[in-house]
Amino acid sequence: MDLELLTVGTELLLGFTVDTNAAFAGQALAGAGVRVVRRTTVSDDPALLRDALAEALGRTRLVLTTGGLGPTRDDLTKKVVADLLGLELEFQEELWTALVERFARMGRKISDRNRCQAEVPRGAVVLPNRWGTAPGLWISGELGEVIMLPGVPIEMRGLMTHEVLPRLAPRTSARVVRSRTVRTTGIPESTLADRVSDIEATLDPLTLAYLPGLEGVDLRLTAWDMESTAADGLLQAASERLRVQLGDHAYGGEGDDLAGILLDECRARGKTIVVAESCTGGMIGQRITAIPGSSDVFLGGIIAYADRLKSALGVPDRILEEFGAVSEETVKAMAKAVRERHGADLAVSVSGIAGPAGGSPEKPVGTVWFGFAGDFGVAAVRWVFPGTRDEIRARASQFALFGLLRHAKSAGA
Amino acid sequence: MDLELLTVGTELLLGFTVDTNAAFAGQALAGAGVRVVRRTTVSDDPALLRDALAEALGRTRLVLTTGGLGPTRDDLTKKVVADLLGLELEFQEELWTALVERFARMGRKISDRNRCQAEVPRGAVVLPNRWGTAPGLWISGELGEVIMLPGVPIEMRGLMTHEVLPRLAPRTSARVVRSRTVRTTGIPESTLADRVSDIEATLDPLTLAYLPGLEGVDLRLTAWDMESTAADGLLQAASERLRVQLGDHAYGGEGDDLAGILLDECRARGKTIVVAESCTGGMIGQRITAIPGSSDVFLGGIIAYADRLKSALGVPDRILEEFGAVSEETVKAMAKAVRERHGADLAVSVSGIAGPAGGSPEKPVGTVWFGFAGDFGVAAVRWVFPGTRDEIRARASQFALFGLLRHAKSAGA
Repeated sequence: MDLELLTVGTELLLGFTVDTNAAFAGQALAGAGVRVVRRTTVSDDPALLRDALAEALGRTRLVLTTGGLGPTRDDLTKKVVADLLGLELEFQEELWTALVERFARMGRKISDRNRCQAEVPRGAVVLPNRWGTAPGLWISGELGEVIMLPGVPIEMRGLMTHEVLPRLAPRTSARVVRSRTVRTTGIPESTLADRVSDIEATLDPLTLAYLPGLEGVDLRLTAWDMESTAADGLLQAASERLRVQLGDHAYGGEGDDLAGILLDECRARGKTIVVAESCTGGMIGQRITAIPGSSDVFLGGIIAYADRLKSALGVPDRILEEFGAVSEETVKAMAKAVRERHGADLAVSVSGIAGPAGGSPEKPVGTVWFGFAGDFGVAAVRWVFPGTRDEIRARASQFALFGLLRHAKSAGA
Repeated sequence: MDLELLTVGTELLLGFTVDTNAAFAGQALAGAGVRVVRRTTVSDDPALLRDALAEALGRTRLVLTTGGLGPTRDDLTKKVVADLLGLELEFQEELWTALVERFARMGRKISDRNRCQAEVPRGAVVLPNRWGTAPGLWISGELGEVIMLPGVPIEMRGLMTHEVLPRLAPRTSARVVRSRTVRTTGIPESTLADRVSDIEATLDPLTLAYLPGLEGVDLRLTAWDMESTAADGLLQAASERLRVQLGDHAYGGEGDDLAGILLDECRARGKTIVVAESCTGGMIGQRITAIPGSSDVFLGGIIAYADRLKSALGVPDRILEEFGAVSEETVKAMAKAVRERHGADLAVSVSGIAGPAGGSPEKPVGTVWFGFAGDFGVAAVRWVFPGTRDEIRARASQFALFGLLRHAKSAGA
């Protein structure tokens, strides 16, 4: 089943808005066995929209539009579609009543301008929108079918998932494009490739993509044009093989944050965590506390950005003077001090040169020292990260979480 | 001058990649007086790409493509374009030499697979790519002109800015679409609208858009289809009027972070800052330290997530017991203690209920108390923010920075 996407909005063409709807729709449709063969974006211009719509229907007879269903005069999609398919717009009293009630619930007064949102092309199926005011519409005409969804991302996603995909399901082939991600961290891409090369050679018909990012390399397995149960089975088995092969370098799937994995691990073992951050400036704490319920594991810590806060924490001045703030001795002292001060099981400390200034031949920009303290004692490791200031800080935060996870898992911690 | 954008890549249609190139290209071209009338995305399929290209050239005779210039067999754009325009591909020795040298500089060995990247359609202008390996190409044929850029965002942006726009400039009309953003914070959208309504009524021919986000409401002024000098003059004057009217609620322009404005203000006044963060968990420190050179103003602070860290900081236990961690008394004690401990000029403290759990009728999810300490003494303010956990934390961080900025500017601080 082939379909074309038509996204409508002057702000999309002008680049004021990034078209995230298109990506969501593409993934959702491919995963349900619908092939998106082309995507077109046009401005809020009725003639240009009409042309693009007619061309798309001529190619596939099935078009999904996003945008242009709101109450302002820029919102032309419904009118243009009805016009092209030769259908009149009818005012539906029950849609209007629902709209008036919705506004009342939100304590707002509805305007006459919204009346057009209760107009529906004759014979269209109305897709109820629980997330906003403009319902989706599904129209069939001689030229083909048009599914219209609003452009607001949360509304578009809700309607796609709960109204469009279930209605398409009986008509799609069972053949789908689906993927599954295994996140990895703390291992360079080339080493990773060596480690999984034996598995990679036997993945066919799945493909494997390496997606390097600031949190590590994501491995994306994809099943192309395959029966859905077979696809899910192969993806499950292959991701499991990758996880076993990569040990603790592999964690979670698409959208999972290492901080969440760390919290689960610590919670299961009854361990608490504190941090002492210099160059990351609070980023590690911020990532951990982004996870709901982190307070039973994460106590807090120190942002020791200036050297005098490192001293106040308990790093001896002679260490700062002799070895500098970015050194093995300093991060060890930071980790030990913050752990003891707050009576935590595990502590991590970070001190580095995020740049752009401050580098030297011995300690180039990107140099970061990490300290860890626990029942095992104190340990430190140095890493040199590539990239901009933001990138170095993000990579360092991820590495700190990875180190904490390793120490939380090890028996002696 | 009308142009169509053609973005090429199966991963775009499948939604694995969000098409940020399209947004960048749209803004850059509109700002230079080129009207992007349509954007089309096709997969890495030569027949579908050829169809879409021929149709686009038929409409505008000027097409800009992104993607499909790499060394793999998926990279078909150059071949398809040359084929459609009836031009042969020629191997260019000097391009190959440059490529070999580039690989050598990066310590990598070039593969024969890369030879195709030195092939150029006969008569094409080569646009040198300083950011990667695939040069851009500009071809004219009987059917029209095609500008080809690589899909890697940093390469696409560099080539657009330094190679494409300067070459288009002599041919474009002087009429452009340009916008300018005035960022605002600490003021609700409805109050903002009231405050600027007199100015808004006199902006014509500029338009004003309200773009609410987690850091406040951005005001975007846009000049549509206007001579470029006139557009810049009107945008400059209007944004200045908005700034004057909104006082310290207005700060910076598109892409500016309030943290940078705060650091500049403090630096100019020789003031230092510390933080004591509970529900934001390090987010304020992280945002401040994201700005290079923040160390002369920002000393660091405490992530007092667990109550025992609030006690350790110096919040009396009877305050925590009597008023709770999310209270005026607690944030005042936190701000006072962290300022005194580290001898800073200004301190902010934050304690709130970010949810999703932990709310109560008296203190619903979203309730956040802020404390400020300085030469003026100690102050506190409460705010209730809407949204998810992430959104509440982001809004609270922004409000903390805004409060610090106000206190830094006030004489007594």
